[in-house]
Amino acid sequence: MDRVLIRELKEYVGKKVTLRGWVHRVRELGGISFVVLRDRSGMAQLVFQGAVDFGVETVLAATGPIQANEKAPEGLEMVVERVEIMAAAAGDLPVPINQDPERIGLEAILDHRMLSLRNPKIRSIFTLQSAINQYFGEYLRSQDFTEIKTSKLIGSGTEGGTGLFEVEYFETKVYLAQSPQFYKQALISSGMERVFEIGAAYRAEKHDTPRHLNEYVSLDVEMAFIESEEDLMDLESGILTYIFEKIRENHQPILDQWNATVPTAEQVAKAPRLPHEEAKKIASDRVGHRLFEINPEAERVICDWSMEQFGVDLVFINEFPRKKRPFYTFPRGLKTMSFDLIFRGLEITTGGRRINEYPMLLETLPRFGLTEEGLGGYTDIFKYGCPPHGGFAIGLERLTQKILGLNNVKEASLFPRDRKRIKP
Amino acid sequence: MDRVLIRELKEYVGKKVTLRGWVHRVRELGGISFVVLRDRSGMAQLVFQGAVDFGVETVLAATGPIQANEKAPEGLEMVVERVEIMAAAAGDLPVPINQDPERIGLEAILDHRMLSLRNPKIRSIFTLQSAINQYFGEYLRSQDFTEIKTSKLIGSGTEGGTGLFEVEYFETKVYLAQSPQFYKQALISSGMERVFEIGAAYRAEKHDTPRHLNEYVSLDVEMAFIESEEDLMDLESGILTYIFEKIRENHQPILDQWNATVPTAEQVAKAPRLPHEEAKKIASDRVGHRLFEINPEAERVICDWSMEQFGVDLVFINEFPRKKRPFYTFPRGLKTMSFDLIFRGLEITTGGRRINEYPMLLETLPRFGLTEEGLGGYTDIFKYGCPPHGGFAIGLERLTQKILGLNNVKEASLFPRDRKRIKP
Repeated sequence: MDRVLIRELKEYVGKKVTLRGWVHRVRELGGISFVVLRDRSGMAQLVFQGAVDFGVETVLAATGPIQANEKAPEGLEMVVERVEIMAAAAGDLPVPINQDPERIGLEAILDHRMLSLRNPKIRSIFTLQSAINQYFGEYLRSQDFTEIKTSKLIGSGTEGGTGLFEVEYFETKVYLAQSPQFYKQALISSGMERVFEIGAAYRAEKHDTPRHLNEYVSLDVEMAFIESEEDLMDLESGILTYIFEKIRENHQPILDQWNATVPTAEQVAKAPRLPHEEAKKIASDRVGHRLFEINPEAERVICDWSMEQFGVDLVFINEFPRKKRPFYTFPRGLKTMSFDLIFRGLEITTGGRRINEYPMLLETLPRFGLTEEGLGGYTDIFKYGCPPHGGFAIGLERLTQKILGLNNVKEASLFPRDRKRIKP
Repeated sequence: MDRVLIRELKEYVGKKVTLRGWVHRVRELGGISFVVLRDRSGMAQLVFQGAVDFGVETVLAATGPIQANEKAPEGLEMVVERVEIMAAAAGDLPVPINQDPERIGLEAILDHRMLSLRNPKIRSIFTLQSAINQYFGEYLRSQDFTEIKTSKLIGSGTEGGTGLFEVEYFETKVYLAQSPQFYKQALISSGMERVFEIGAAYRAEKHDTPRHLNEYVSLDVEMAFIESEEDLMDLESGILTYIFEKIRENHQPILDQWNATVPTAEQVAKAPRLPHEEAKKIASDRVGHRLFEINPEAERVICDWSMEQFGVDLVFINEFPRKKRPFYTFPRGLKTMSFDLIFRGLEITTGGRRINEYPMLLETLPRFGLTEEGLGGYTDIFKYGCPPHGGFAIGLERLTQKILGLNNVKEASLFPRDRKRIKP
């Protein structure tokens, strides 16, 4: 008998079907066993006469008629007539699958990642993340962007050489890319004009905080023929509006499960755009002492301020000083045409217009201790005609974290890597 | 004046517009300069009175009325009234942009990748590749698959430890993943049941052939509740049919430019499924001597044979012997439930059903010199209930190469990595 998914059961009341899935819970009551079966689409109650000889996480195929029972989840249950054990499960599960993940603890969740992902609430994080990737790409393709896949093995760093992981590459050494920056620029200048990449990025930084990963997924965007960072903030607002709307449309049950909401289109449109100096002042006022940079505390209080002032916890900060940004950032006097986006107290994006004028680039390099030769072909992009352009990157795990209200960004990475964690 | 794209020009005949793009070609004739401008959407002729003071690859904004001229490309041209140089280009281009790439040579194309991507024919390879990624994801999402992003930094190899690049990771060493195999298995077993990943894969193999890359993009698929590799070959046929149909629908001009075609749905449906033994026999007959494996020569002649017999150069080969497949391959007697897919003479996919039964896995490990401990948590997937499942991976660059008829797989990688090439 062909398998039916649990979400389709309401079409089969009074009919006999086969379900397949994992045993989520077993309860015996008055000579009857109630088994909750879990498949990719949901959970359903199976009713067995007498005790059952299998435990949680066993994979079953169960066949029987579907009947209404107002006490069962979704009001339906299967009266099992035939059961096949497709795969047995040992009884010594190192982490519980059928409990609220809050009761497990992050270390245990990550140590036993191969199993903790079976927890439906934990798994839902990654169903949502898959959707974010989908909507990010859908929106950009609708705006004529081309998806690119660039090498993650590079001869030298894009941000000055610090924080790079070294790779033994045959007779030489290369590094894991911190960002696809140079490649994005080559590609907008190739005539693609508008590109995006969903790819891994690596930072060999020794931090161990709830906001950092040493390997993360970067949602990268680059666009030609812009005037300034304003065009980029407009584009990012468009992307986020689309992602949020689509999540609300298609994944409300996941939001409900996490007691989460996403900003509305109206809210995103109201996100303020604060020059860096002004943002520092607002944050300093709030915390009661002078802040010299937008540190994590400042990110939180600025979002609080924005929520009070504009009803949205999404804030663009632009006009960062030159010395706080990479060499390729386009200047505006002593400031730059750059921006960050802070969402619910956490920076989720850095971006800006890039230097596209070859003479300006040549003048800038020595100030950052760089040479044309050291950048291995990078400057050719600009020597031979490169339009004004810019871009940004959204951290996928941070965006996921902030949408669902997770405490730690590691919860939003399938297999997070930090200084101590390299498995599973 | 707002910018108009070249592909929109036919809507603007008799009207004044602004175009932006790169100077593709300049020709002076009888006191008039004919300039071909290139933007992301196409090429258009600009007409200037007298000589122009810019060369190829200069980025321009040109304004003027659009008029019909049957001698111009697409029958339209702009009579330029005002021109703005947005970015100058040096005159010593190291590779020509406006010539047939066949006249340039692969080494020069790759050495000057930042510039050679501007060649419209070369660039079109990656427009098509972007579309392949899109259609791959679209089809799988329509079949209830979830997209995953797994770590590329792993504690040990999935295929036995050879061919791995080593990474200095703080106080320890890790490796670049050859495939997301273990992670895919954990995720189908998490209850997602159906997952796909578009991600980088690394092989530290010292080959330098037209069919190998040391870093490539792997289109990975894994699915639970299958019976055998037949289900997987069905799924891959569905994916390829969708990709080919969509390419024909949306990218015929790129196919035409490369004088390429894609198999029809009817052709894909006719792709034969040959047991490994039989494939060896057919290949041996064709080459006139006994072949002991399906080597590159055999891949070519088997596709020739299939083209003659079934009118399609797409061949599934299944039932590989156990010793030719990784430890996790599900056995069928002395053979395995595994398969390769050969397309136009090149293997583009390897896949199969995996061992999901814990006792069978424990029995298999020592035969491959492996231990449960050495696999760091991997076997937990199976110890606690894992359904029958399998999957496969398609090499994105190989698929792109074979669709367009490129000679070398490196042509289908934006920034290819081989033993000697690590930049740009």
